[in-house]
Amino acid sequence: MSDDNSQVLSPEEQFRQQALDYHAYPTAGKISVELSKPAETAGDLSLAYSPGVAEPVREIAQNAENVYKYTAKGNMVAVISNGTAILGLGNLGPLASKPVMEGKALLFKRFAGLDSIDIEVKHRTIEEFVDTVANIADTFGGINLEDIKAPDCFEIEKQLIERCDVPVFHDDQHGTAIVTAAGMLNAIELQGKKLEDAIIVCLGAGAAAVACMELLIKCGAMREKIYMLDRKGVIHTRRDDLNQYKQLFANNTDKRTLEDVIEGADLFLGVSGPNLLDPEALKLMADKPIVFACSNPDPEIKPELAHQVRSDIIMGTGRSDYPNQVNNVLCFPFIFRGALDVRASEINDAMKLAAVDAIRQLAKEAVPAEVLKAAGVDKLEFGPEYIIPKPMDPRLLPRVAKAVANAAVESGVARIDMPENYMQS
Amino acid sequence: MSDDNSQVLSPEEQFRQQALDYHAYPTAGKISVELSKPAETAGDLSLAYSPGVAEPVREIAQNAENVYKYTAKGNMVAVISNGTAILGLGNLGPLASKPVMEGKALLFKRFAGLDSIDIEVKHRTIEEFVDTVANIADTFGGINLEDIKAPDCFEIEKQLIERCDVPVFHDDQHGTAIVTAAGMLNAIELQGKKLEDAIIVCLGAGAAAVACMELLIKCGAMREKIYMLDRKGVIHTRRDDLNQYKQLFANNTDKRTLEDVIEGADLFLGVSGPNLLDPEALKLMADKPIVFACSNPDPEIKPELAHQVRSDIIMGTGRSDYPNQVNNVLCFPFIFRGALDVRASEINDAMKLAAVDAIRQLAKEAVPAEVLKAAGVDKLEFGPEYIIPKPMDPRLLPRVAKAVANAAVESGVARIDMPENYMQS
Repeated sequence: MSDDNSQVLSPEEQFRQQALDYHAYPTAGKISVELSKPAETAGDLSLAYSPGVAEPVREIAQNAENVYKYTAKGNMVAVISNGTAILGLGNLGPLASKPVMEGKALLFKRFAGLDSIDIEVKHRTIEEFVDTVANIADTFGGINLEDIKAPDCFEIEKQLIERCDVPVFHDDQHGTAIVTAAGMLNAIELQGKKLEDAIIVCLGAGAAAVACMELLIKCGAMREKIYMLDRKGVIHTRRDDLNQYKQLFANNTDKRTLEDVIEGADLFLGVSGPNLLDPEALKLMADKPIVFACSNPDPEIKPELAHQVRSDIIMGTGRSDYPNQVNNVLCFPFIFRGALDVRASEINDAMKLAAVDAIRQLAKEAVPAEVLKAAGVDKLEFGPEYIIPKPMDPRLLPRVAKAVANAAVESGVARIDMPENYMQS
Repeated sequence: MSDDNSQVLSPEEQFRQQALDYHAYPTAGKISVELSKPAETAGDLSLAYSPGVAEPVREIAQNAENVYKYTAKGNMVAVISNGTAILGLGNLGPLASKPVMEGKALLFKRFAGLDSIDIEVKHRTIEEFVDTVANIADTFGGINLEDIKAPDCFEIEKQLIERCDVPVFHDDQHGTAIVTAAGMLNAIELQGKKLEDAIIVCLGAGAAAVACMELLIKCGAMREKIYMLDRKGVIHTRRDDLNQYKQLFANNTDKRTLEDVIEGADLFLGVSGPNLLDPEALKLMADKPIVFACSNPDPEIKPELAHQVRSDIIMGTGRSDYPNQVNNVLCFPFIFRGALDVRASEINDAMKLAAVDAIRQLAKEAVPAEVLKAAGVDKLEFGPEYIIPKPMDPRLLPRVAKAVANAAVESGVARIDMPENYMQS
């Protein structure tokens, strides 16, 4: 195992070693493939393989839907990446992304009981990536795209949704957007504001930023009241360096800097980098501001600092050690669970909005003792310090999955009805 | 579950229903993905995913070989098919092949402890299939191609071996060839013949036939003494309808039919169809003939019939209910086990021949009681009725894997040394 030199290691170094050991021992990696059927005797094997296996083959050849009855497809999610935007680490390539993708597979199993396997893709062009994934897509019940850089991710997801029969979902976009929207809508409600009146500043213009703003608009936000900023400042109509995705947020404004747009803003979403929101700038925001500082591990502004300058603020971050953690795991396992359980052909807006609503509502309910215990607190009550559920809340699975499955059925993308007594334990 | 009408079902119908039920209940399919590391607490998840997962990512980005230390890659075999030659059922497409590929994954786990996942590929051209598999190959420790029609399978395997860093092995070719060669060589020895003198008839010219003959040649058989037959008869030098793979076996002969070539032949390999070897033809074979009638489920000639006309014969079939079953499972789990355990970059001829030899030798050793029990017999002794080990023989794993790993190291394709005390329990 690791060298026993923990006495001379700093806490950071200890954590680093602990993380490496976790991945390396006793076996390499975090997932395995196991048998879900007996395979001991020659009799077992004659059913699992030749000659018995010919029977389900024939059934599927006659009716493709039988693949859901006789194979693991219907419960299998592929986590697919090219490693071009790994966590906050950047473009390190497909191989280096593997621990993250296996980790995502682990979360799918842990939170929603979905079988999930990582696939790392090397490719030259966007077209080649899309072809590769589309060609293997029938293997799986759904495809979770992960850590693909913007703007490639938008085009890739769009083409794959068109070409695949199974749901394709880029979690860095939509998972983030769903959880962010749930938190922001609850914060808006608590601050007594209206989303359609809100002036919104979005610092960052990558995959998550674009998806968050698009979803907020679907929830009622006004596009013309959104100021999105990239590394060059405010995205406005007179810039000629914008890709088609940023162009959708080009604001017809004379404002050019964060300082220009933060004044009077109601909502700030940071998906950029550490300490980019100055306390002086925060002072300029409207009454009862909402700040989601989601840069990880170091937020755009530290919550303790923000609370010092604004006592009327509601804050969210990406961190587990502050209140209101915006964490994709509140969404992606359950949105796939619901989608797969009714064999949805896609994950559409109705399903995303249903997930937003289910997550929102759960935060307003009394919190079970086990959740309090896992969170290490005595009380969690809907309010400025608790606007979204905790990641370990076991109610997320039934609530979000059921809401999503129901929305799939109602919006006509489900291939089967919701199972009877679905998610009622 | 299934309707309880077993009283009115024929044995065939009962087996069919049993096979379908096995695949459908209690869960669909035969494999699942499970967690190999703890993932209960928030602390566990901080190691498995963000922020801890960044550490193995960095290690792999610095040195690609670390992917074997920190991810499941090194124990993971992809079973990949396009469904163009499913068992004896033909070209039913990728989706219908899924139960077979999952079944193969099950066998990898059951016999060699390898994690294995199926991937079904839809594609238009050979190039597109190769591109797709090559683009995802880094995900896995090895790639087992399966049920791909000839002659496409030859070109596909050749190109993938060139393009992939991990072993690529078309089991229908080489697994079959290895087990066939092991049995044939032992039969040759028992009949007191020499392979280099043997006249060989190969009925069938598909993937398995070509691979079996190529491997027999590497074991010492003479190409000019081989007569291969396709649907049109003997493959000879004056035919102009031969693909490049059949051309390699074009014999400079005036013989045109099975009856022409079977006279005086020492070895017959059938990889064609039921009852294609007439008892009258069998009578024409040389003294002490060897007949492997591997068509499944119905062999080219039934063993009881063959033994009626030739008391001096040694026979093998593809069936478990006759002696000398030629079954790929004697080879493929263990050849991958050995190859992956020394990180072989390919599965080369030295490794294949080492597998042949290990399987041969095992048949000459005393058989443990548990193997006799599983086979339902009192005695198994090297001889005409026992020329290859039984599929459930637990000695296959250590023997074949070790021989293969050793051959990989000796032939210079292993990336790491054989682990100390490898396969010694």
